Amino acid sequence: MNPELIKRPTLVLDEAKCRRNIRQMVQKAISQDLIFRPHFKTHQSHLVGSWFRDEGIQRIAVSSLAMASYFVSDGWKNITIAFPFNYREADLLDSLAGKAKIHQTILSLEAVKYLEKKLSNPVHIWVKIDTGARRTGISWDHHEQTDPIIDFLRNKENMQFCGFLVHAGHTYNARSKEEVFSIYQDSLQKLNFLRDRYRAVFPDLTISWGDTPSCSMIDKLDGIDEIRPGNFVFYDLMQEEIGSCTHDQIAVALACPVVAKHPERNAIILYGGGVHLSKESINFKGKQMFGRIALSEGNSWGPALEDAFIVSLSQEHGIIQANQGLMERLNPGDLVYVLPVHSCMTADLMQGYMLTDGQFADHMSGKMNKSWL
Amino acid sequence: MNPELIKRPTLVLDEAKCRRNIRQMVQKAISQDLIFRPHFKTHQSHLVGSWFRDEGIQRIAVSSLAMASYFVSDGWKNITIAFPFNYREADLLDSLAGKAKIHQTILSLEAVKYLEKKLSNPVHIWVKIDTGARRTGISWDHHEQTDPIIDFLRNKENMQFCGFLVHAGHTYNARSKEEVFSIYQDSLQKLNFLRDRYRAVFPDLTISWGDTPSCSMIDKLDGIDEIRPGNFVFYDLMQEEIGSCTHDQIAVALACPVVAKHPERNAIILYGGGVHLSKESINFKGKQMFGRIALSEGNSWGPALEDAFIVSLSQEHGIIQANQGLMERLNPGDLVYVLPVHSCMTADLMQGYMLTDGQFADHMSGKMNKSWL
Repeated sequence: MNPELIKRPTLVLDEAKCRRNIRQMVQKAISQDLIFRPHFKTHQSHLVGSWFRDEGIQRIAVSSLAMASYFVSDGWKNITIAFPFNYREADLLDSLAGKAKIHQTILSLEAVKYLEKKLSNPVHIWVKIDTGARRTGISWDHHEQTDPIIDFLRNKENMQFCGFLVHAGHTYNARSKEEVFSIYQDSLQKLNFLRDRYRAVFPDLTISWGDTPSCSMIDKLDGIDEIRPGNFVFYDLMQEEIGSCTHDQIAVALACPVVAKHPERNAIILYGGGVHLSKESINFKGKQMFGRIALSEGNSWGPALEDAFIVSLSQEHGIIQANQGLMERLNPGDLVYVLPVHSCMTADLMQGYMLTDGQFADHMSGKMNKSWL
Repeated sequence: MNPELIKRPTLVLDEAKCRRNIRQMVQKAISQDLIFRPHFKTHQSHLVGSWFRDEGIQRIAVSSLAMASYFVSDGWKNITIAFPFNYREADLLDSLAGKAKIHQTILSLEAVKYLEKKLSNPVHIWVKIDTGARRTGISWDHHEQTDPIIDFLRNKENMQFCGFLVHAGHTYNARSKEEVFSIYQDSLQKLNFLRDRYRAVFPDLTISWGDTPSCSMIDKLDGIDEIRPGNFVFYDLMQEEIGSCTHDQIAVALACPVVAKHPERNAIILYGGGVHLSKESINFKGKQMFGRIALSEGNSWGPALEDAFIVSLSQEHGIIQANQGLMERLNPGDLVYVLPVHSCMTADLMQGYMLTDGQFADHMSGKMNKSWL
């Protein structure tokens, strides 16, 4: 990649780092005899998807039917919609189920009853369970809700019950391996309880487990059958803070032109704002931080600078609070790299990647147009 | 618009409200003899732009050269790039300047010197001044920076100095008309000082003033020549909190399908998350709030509910903390409207609009593809 060609905020993807992240998770899954079903919501790209294929991956998860359609069109044949069933898209779900093995997450008896009437093609069903993240899912101990669903799903031809799907999103609040492990163990106990309860009727029921922190940080993922991490493909500063990755595993950075500097307040102004990075922030050295700064190195970027980071973002501007050395080193017209706080959001905003070899990688895009309905 | 047609998170634009917002600002500008140069970064739409044309508007502001190109392609002939000059896009700037009257904001002597060498077409030059927002701009009292720029711009054929451009973004921290007015008066004093300093050389220099809060809330905008508000075209909850608009002036809402509900924790789960609304939040009734809920009314939406709002967003999920009444009223498959905290970010993410009459409005889109370079 020739940095001189970059004129505007551009999301650069380091293929070598990304493939390393993928391989590492593949190897972990293989060594522990886990089904690996990567979540593709982070990259949303056919090309990046093909790097998973290169490692033998055939099963994936997505977070919308639109995303499922995008990957079905690229030949993916086994897809979990890791999002509650959307009644308003029942027809699209049925049509996708005619083209690929579709797994749908459901949350209520009403949903499966509705689906049964709508489906002409078989769909695999997962019941979403909440073990403490409190986002969505039936509470693991609310058997008055799970019992009738499991009962209803016995001997259904078009709806094969697979098991329980969990996203332990509360690991994102953890800040150590111990905390993540404790959340994992607590969830596992609850899931084993469920497995025991329904084992007699569904002896093969499986447990699918999401979230990058636990899949990255827990050495032995005992007691579950499938993992669905997504973010690990790129990682980011939030994952580094949790402890899921090291700094040099972060595989995307936003290349941004410097457009101004204000020495009297040690500020460097970037072309690159909330519409590029998203406004996600974490705490860093006691301040709110929206991204860290790295300089060009070879055809990629070097380590993040210690004393310079983004302290404020508006729609198109980013403000770096810089140290004296950086103030002297950088000038308008220069290019810097910003490591993102949350790569899923940044990738979703940028809708495309420039690889370090100068090629482009696609991204599912064009969110709304005349074919929306 | 038929709400039954909406299957996925869809940004609905109420044309009547939007045209009213436009007309109101046009009338204010006319009555006070101000040049009205609306900032188009909020809507980024040819169609919405045409509603300004209907009111006689011919001058606009944008925040990037990509956006300028988009509006030049729709016949706009007088455009201010209200963003620091980006050295890496000098050729594009020059090419646009051959098609329309382009105004460029600059921040340093180096920038104008560089521009002079690059330009083959005339460009109007504005010096960006900071009066306290501390985002970007030369501090109003740093004459050692402004003097050489103004001096350099004397008698330049290709670079006509127009005046000083200010974005008093610190009005976004204000929470009353008095606070906004006090920021305005303070800035005005500083700008008058600058005007006096350079009046002898540039007797016609003008002052261009941005930001929706002051343009909405200050009755008499004395002492400035041009206004460039942007957000007012849609308004949002943040503007309502500042005091710039009333509730019923908010012209966009994200229509979201309900996908689940959890009565035991009074939670309603929407298909609609950070990739649709953005993660901007404000404080509401002591809690972090990411959007307010309204129900369908006619072909638009009704007033926001008092006891139900979005308390959490992940990539595609939104969680409503609901009262008992709403828990009983709403079911999966229903549609609700979410009034956005920051409409600029939501519109940028959604990249398109459905009008309340069922038609679509365009949005500048496709952020990165093979023609990126």
